[in-house]
Amino acid sequence: MIKNEISFRVRYAETDRMGFVYYGNYAAYLEMGRVELLRSVGMSYRALEDQGVLLPVRDFSIQYRQAALYDDLLTLETSMTELPETRIHFTYVLRNDVGLLLTTADTTLIFVDQNTSRPIRCPNALYSLLAPFFTN
Amino acid sequence: MIKNEISFRVRYAETDRMGFVYYGNYAAYLEMGRVELLRSVGMSYRALEDQGVLLPVRDFSIQYRQAALYDDLLTLETSMTELPETRIHFTYVLRNDVGLLLTTADTTLIFVDQNTSRPIRCPNALYSLLAPFFTN
Amino acid sequence: MIKNEISFRVRYAETDRMGFVYYGNYAAYLEMGRVELLRSVGMSYRALEDQGVLLPVRDFSIQYRQAALYDDLLTLETSMTELPETRIHFTYVLRNDVGLLLTTADTTLIFVDQNTSRPIRCPNALYSLLAPFFTN
Amino acid sequence: MIKNEISFRVRYAETDRMGFVYYGNYAAYLEMGRVELLRSVGMSYRALEDQGVLLPVRDFSIQYRQAALYDDLLTLETSMTELPETRIHFTYVLRNDVGLLLTTADTTLIFVDQNTSRPIRCPNALYSLLAPFFTN
Repeated sequence: MIKNEISFRVRYAETDRMGFVYYGNYAAYLEMGRVELLRSVGMSYRALEDQGVLLPVRDFSIQYRQAALYDDLLTLETSMTELPETRIHFTYVLRNDVGLLLTTADTTLIFVDQNTSRPIRCPNALYSLLAPFFTN
Repeated sequence: MIKNEISFRVRYAETDRMGFVYYGNYAAYLEMGRVELLRSVGMSYRALEDQGVLLPVRDFSIQYRQAALYDDLLTLETSMTELPETRIHFTYVLRNDVGLLLTTADTTLIFVDQNTSRPIRCPNALYSLLAPFFTN
Repeated sequence: MIKNEISFRVRYAETDRMGFVYYGNYAAYLEMGRVELLRSVGMSYRALEDQGVLLPVRDFSIQYRQAALYDDLLTLETSMTELPETRIHFTYVLRNDVGLLLTTADTTLIFVDQNTSRPIRCPNALYSLLAPFFTN
Repeated sequence: MIKNEISFRVRYAETDRMGFVYYGNYAAYLEMGRVELLRSVGMSYRALEDQGVLLPVRDFSIQYRQAALYDDLLTLETSMTELPETRIHFTYVLRNDVGLLLTTADTTLIFVDQNTSRPIRCPNALYSLLAPFFTN
């Protein structure tokens, strides 16, 4: 299992007329979480893409428990619980600065070869960085 | 059951570096779908909010099958399959202009009293507009 | 001179905590305006890009006079007042559904060769479509 | 004069089909810059709004010199060169992590009383925090 945590402030642009973070804007937060988790094991997602491997999201579900508000300092915990084969799965827990649970979510992404637009297995370069975390 | 269909073009702002619609941007499409479904039965969501009833999203899940591309003319079908009580549920099917299935999704929203910030039942004004579609 | 008009509704996602359209979100409206102006003379911006010509924005200025509100039905008038050479210039006037002036803006874009990343002159395919509007 | 600097990474959600940051998304960066400048002198913009003072943007202009790219670590310098009276003016310089100038911009905001929706002068609470920086 791999866990990573990031903190960031809610931007004005992310709020909506209700004064809450717009429900679609959490997707960008989750993306930051998984990108930083990958960076923490030594993999730049940008470099992966530059090598011709895309990671489009295949499935996404999210449960909104409490609203995130403007200027809130949020903490996002991102976890990878399985070594990826053809899919890569992340789960997320978002809390505000007093530890209140705001949102839980999970995403499944696939690996795609940019040239052929076809699904591929997890590239070796990434797999070998992740594997040590899943031995026991 | 109530169904509604809207069509719109993918905006440049909605695309990402992969050339696809960014996965978080579909949320705004779905919001348009349910707002237009409500308008089709005679209810303005803006009016509902102006009367102090908020409809925050509680749960959202989405399955991405094919990518929507810049300038694609998309068609979104939104359905309400149950008369709402304390929650209102919508399902969505998004297709491109050759009828290819791109995305399916569903959302559950709750009714909240703006003054008390507490959940309430579906307001009568909305309930009475929806009920005729669910008699049998 | 070429003029074009489009109408569209403000989406919930585009509002902010003040209840207005967030000031950065008008950029996407203007993009729709210029894309539809080009389409009206027979040029698909997507096709232009697929042929390797990019049109990044170089300068953008905007004056906010009245706020656009959620669910407002807006009308955007886009104008091209000069035949483009190395730059292409658009001006914009945005009004709400009672004709109130909300926003004026202008943008200058350049033509860039996608392969070399270098500025180029307006492609002939586009120039020849635009020229008839500027003869006198 | 007051200056402030923030650093942040470009998010995937902020890129577009060209692979650059979408031109409308810089607005959210500038908002972060001015909010942090105000925080640095002891003023929370959120608190200001909670006290009934809104700061809508009145004029915004931006010059794009070089594109910001996905995952770039950007540095934004925000400056206030005049003590605000009825308007508050900020200028911005955005650079990437090798110091290359990407974007310059400026914004003018007005103070609005949330209850009356009318322009007001800079609130005393803010003015007294800013004044010490402009004495000479």
